[in-house]
Amino acid sequence: MSKIRIGIVGYGNLGKGAELGIRQNEDMVLAGVFTRRDPSKIKLMTEGAKAYRIEDAKNMTDQIDVMILCSGSMSDLPEQGPFFAASFNTVDGFDTHAKIPQYYDAMDKEAKAAGKVCVISSGWDPGMFSLNRLYAEAILPQGHNYTFWGKGVSQGHSDAIRRVEGVVNAKQYTIPIESALERIRQGETPEFTTREKHRRECYVVAAEGADKSKIEHEIKTMPNYFADYDTEVHFITQEEFDKNHGGLAHGGFVLQSGKTGLNNENNHLIEYRIKLDSNADFTANVLLAYARAAYRMNKEGCSGAKTVFDIAPAYLSMKSGEQLRKEML
Amino acid sequence: MSKIRIGIVGYGNLGKGAELGIRQNEDMVLAGVFTRRDPSKIKLMTEGAKAYRIEDAKNMTDQIDVMILCSGSMSDLPEQGPFFAASFNTVDGFDTHAKIPQYYDAMDKEAKAAGKVCVISSGWDPGMFSLNRLYAEAILPQGHNYTFWGKGVSQGHSDAIRRVEGVVNAKQYTIPIESALERIRQGETPEFTTREKHRRECYVVAAEGADKSKIEHEIKTMPNYFADYDTEVHFITQEEFDKNHGGLAHGGFVLQSGKTGLNNENNHLIEYRIKLDSNADFTANVLLAYARAAYRMNKEGCSGAKTVFDIAPAYLSMKSGEQLRKEML
Repeated sequence: MSKIRIGIVGYGNLGKGAELGIRQNEDMVLAGVFTRRDPSKIKLMTEGAKAYRIEDAKNMTDQIDVMILCSGSMSDLPEQGPFFAASFNTVDGFDTHAKIPQYYDAMDKEAKAAGKVCVISSGWDPGMFSLNRLYAEAILPQGHNYTFWGKGVSQGHSDAIRRVEGVVNAKQYTIPIESALERIRQGETPEFTTREKHRRECYVVAAEGADKSKIEHEIKTMPNYFADYDTEVHFITQEEFDKNHGGLAHGGFVLQSGKTGLNNENNHLIEYRIKLDSNADFTANVLLAYARAAYRMNKEGCSGAKTVFDIAPAYLSMKSGEQLRKEML
Repeated sequence: MSKIRIGIVGYGNLGKGAELGIRQNEDMVLAGVFTRRDPSKIKLMTEGAKAYRIEDAKNMTDQIDVMILCSGSMSDLPEQGPFFAASFNTVDGFDTHAKIPQYYDAMDKEAKAAGKVCVISSGWDPGMFSLNRLYAEAILPQGHNYTFWGKGVSQGHSDAIRRVEGVVNAKQYTIPIESALERIRQGETPEFTTREKHRRECYVVAAEGADKSKIEHEIKTMPNYFADYDTEVHFITQEEFDKNHGGLAHGGFVLQSGKTGLNNENNHLIEYRIKLDSNADFTANVLLAYARAAYRMNKEGCSGAKTVFDIAPAYLSMKSGEQLRKEML
């Protein structure tokens, strides 16, 4: 059986995670990395693989089965997504929740015209968490669903802190509040305020001579980002920052508590939890599993934009339907 | 929109759970319960609904969209499944793992000939646990998967105890060993012995004058059922038994730990956990969600036997694709 030839667009943390993930999937091979940087300056980790300019992709449609789009959701994917959908099966982790419907429509149009399958908004949230919300709600319709994120780094919040005057460097951790999780596990169905679900911990490197109390105040009162949370601010040195806060750990919880019975006397809890040393690696691995699905569905004549909701689980597995029924059901 | 008309075959705990579950799904209505008992002796909980003899079903193919088969896997479903598949969309929770391939083939043949969709082996294990094994393995192929059951009642083990001489009544709880779960959560990938994963707690009502130490010894040394486990036997009165051991609580865990990174330096954990006051109610609710899927897939022209692996998640939800993308992704 010939391997699925994977192209990677963008070579940041996610792209590198995808490159490494391909090694774990024996039915896949890296066909090339596509970058806006100078390809000659990029050193890949895969022997024999090459980096290309993004513009070169259009001449390689016969050499790539699925393109993994590893660029940012904010400004890159809205342009790159439809561009690649016009010539390739694609998978991406588009995660600007509010813009998903619009992005779906744009991708669907291009993918249908090109006869390709384009999986959008894969990863873990959106992605595996979305799936778990859907399954849980379908099973326990008389229930409450809760999503918690962390402990993990929020890039958006870290960026926001870095924009404060006098801040040289910053990392923000979102942390779920354990007592809130515990209440749900005990069968309660509370309506939490924002503050009751997550707290925020910030590690900040301040410029020499900067007014730390002013920085702390500005962070803690920042609307949307911090004002509605209990926020701790820790000032540390650049050395401490480099040593202890370089990681990409993340994770989270999807919980559903529901009731059944003649008088709602039975409580049920579904809890899905992930704990990740590397957000990027895990996300990349999810994208790769969906690349397999995109490839297979396209082979079967399917086209258009798809989300994790639209894809039967069997498409993600290397195993045949027969094997799955025998070994995993 | 017309409602999905559900028939229920078998009116034990699972059938009753399905009847109650229908109330939670506003797109469904109970079209009838089918039983081998005398229908006039069965009192349903749903106003206006009727119980019928199983033989009456064949005259009601135009009144029922999906049949939920709530009979036992051991002796009933192998016969009833193919029988109903020849005339109805069906959903069942066939759970004799070793016989699934054979049951699938029998159901697939009938369902294809009849142009119906028959979802087999739905529920939680097989079912939701199988799904979680598949998703987790596809995402973390370099990983280890573990399934734990309980705390919950094992019907088979309870039955086995009741066959011991001098035993009047018995309930057996399967209990996952917390320290084993904890090792996996910490990133270890142990090969557990049977004894290291689960322990067994038995509550036994002995006949008057029975030799309790002989009963205890017979239970603890029973091959296949107890010999490979640490087993506790508690003798209790019938009153205690009725008061404290009438429930159907169950649950369990699917965990996957996996590694990524250039040198496998990153650990990841996926944990799916359910905790159920009523095994039957929860299982019934899963079957109902898959009844919705069977109905819709059949409307789209699909036929044949399906498992949870073959069904795109969106089919389970009452919400449209557009709503799902907007609200749940």
